[in-house]
Amino acid sequence: MAWHFALMIDPADVDDTRSDFAATFTEVDPAAPALTVGELSTQRGDGIFESIGVIDGHPQEVEAHLSRLAHSAQLCDLPVPHAEQWRQAVALAASACGAGEAVIKLILSRGIEHGPTPTAWVTAAPAADFSIARSRGIRVVTLDRGYALDVPSRAPWLLLGAKTLSYAVNMAALREARRRGADDAIFTTSDGYVLEAPTASLILRRGDAFLTPAPNAGILHGTTQLSLFEHLAAQGFETGYETIPVAELHTVDAAWLVSSVRLAAPITAIDDVDVPMDAALTVSMNDYLLSPRD
Amino acid sequence: MAWHFALMIDPADVDDTRSDFAATFTEVDPAAPALTVGELSTQRGDGIFESIGVIDGHPQEVEAHLSRLAHSAQLCDLPVPHAEQWRQAVALAASACGAGEAVIKLILSRGIEHGPTPTAWVTAAPAADFSIARSRGIRVVTLDRGYALDVPSRAPWLLLGAKTLSYAVNMAALREARRRGADDAIFTTSDGYVLEAPTASLILRRGDAFLTPAPNAGILHGTTQLSLFEHLAAQGFETGYETIPVAELHTVDAAWLVSSVRLAAPITAIDDVDVPMDAALTVSMNDYLLSPRD
Repeated sequence: MAWHFALMIDPADVDDTRSDFAATFTEVDPAAPALTVGELSTQRGDGIFESIGVIDGHPQEVEAHLSRLAHSAQLCDLPVPHAEQWRQAVALAASACGAGEAVIKLILSRGIEHGPTPTAWVTAAPAADFSIARSRGIRVVTLDRGYALDVPSRAPWLLLGAKTLSYAVNMAALREARRRGADDAIFTTSDGYVLEAPTASLILRRGDAFLTPAPNAGILHGTTQLSLFEHLAAQGFETGYETIPVAELHTVDAAWLVSSVRLAAPITAIDDVDVPMDAALTVSMNDYLLSPRD
Repeated sequence: MAWHFALMIDPADVDDTRSDFAATFTEVDPAAPALTVGELSTQRGDGIFESIGVIDGHPQEVEAHLSRLAHSAQLCDLPVPHAEQWRQAVALAASACGAGEAVIKLILSRGIEHGPTPTAWVTAAPAADFSIARSRGIRVVTLDRGYALDVPSRAPWLLLGAKTLSYAVNMAALREARRRGADDAIFTTSDGYVLEAPTASLILRRGDAFLTPAPNAGILHGTTQLSLFEHLAAQGFETGYETIPVAELHTVDAAWLVSSVRLAAPITAIDDVDVPMDAALTVSMNDYLLSPRD
């Protein structure tokens, strides 16, 4: 991702007492040095992030992303992000995005070791072209994430519901998928249940019902999945959260990986077994996801 | 850690054909911006590192650290680090350390997304004062790392033998240990075996035998543990690698967490159960670890 806009945020620059609080930001050149070598984000992957889709300058579902950022902060013992400050930073970054699709990334790092405050910044860039993934679909493989289904609830220090900067394993899983000739991966538990993709949520269709793995298994609650479920429910479809055994992947009527920037990518094969693709429904999903919404 | 010295390394600046290859480095101010917001180390924790202890300007066991760096690079599909270039960077950083104890950190990041090369740098700082941990010992708690013993061998994408920058969970485990009134943690497998500490190796004493968890369980092979085992073997002690059930922690004659900078910290309690402390042996271990060695 070649960022074309970057804004440093000062988490200490927050006036909670004013109703008309106006945050101040420092714009930095995304191609120039902006972070010190003491940054814990870079030394320890110690921080959290969100990626927000932008359509024609409109940032999508900002509130859902900000509330997930706050949830991640809580799980990681980071200070509560000041929502209004982030809202204003997102608005400024969005105004730097032109027509078409873009992405805004929010990063909240623990800061410099023993430093006074976290470090925080926002970046923006034009989105990559995902039209082929959306129209022709993607092939995926299942990869064991190594944890049993009950691990997240009994070991909160594993940070499994937090969107942390420690994504080396997510990136390694994508490389492993490509080595196997696939485009993406679906993580599974070591005891055989379906979780999520390294950077996307999974949605399955069974008849007129749409389902996604229950987020109690320590997976992220996908903002795009949430929005799409609202849209599907409004059209009269049934939606639900379930604990889904891996074997059920091969009995579905359709499947998608959904995320904030690539949006809905229909799955055409799982572990080299074909999955039916619903082209018309996928088009209508992406039409919805490409329309400006809050 | 307040770094007092930092050196950027250009992985492209390597002449493999010259026998007298002399690397060139760019010294940067550790308190000033040196990294861009596009760095994958900071966005994804996508890179690897090593921490080298320095005694009176002498970097300890550089070759063992460089070979572990190369091993981590291989597991993470990063380019092979050029050993001589890193050796020269370490020597330069060590020459910037004064008398007493210091730490040098090597970082190899995947670089900027879609960028031409990785980003690499070395930092140095005076070490914190660990004399109390070494003399009075530390209290530890066991924390489940969530993986069964056989996971690492069947899921290499989990990068369990690599020392990656994705250390958010290691840091969260240390916070959890402190919440429980302890100084440090010992990770265990979900099926009840002993692994390692978030930033140290575990050594147990049983009579005249010293043992450590076998590194086939996807733990790092500790450079300090390796060196200490050589030293103990030279003194006529037995040393060995074993698969160690958690219950055995409460039958040992002594236990230590060992690492490159804190060195040997005797464990005085595990999960609030006292562990015998061998003060004289600990002093001799740290005398050895504080002597310059390669």
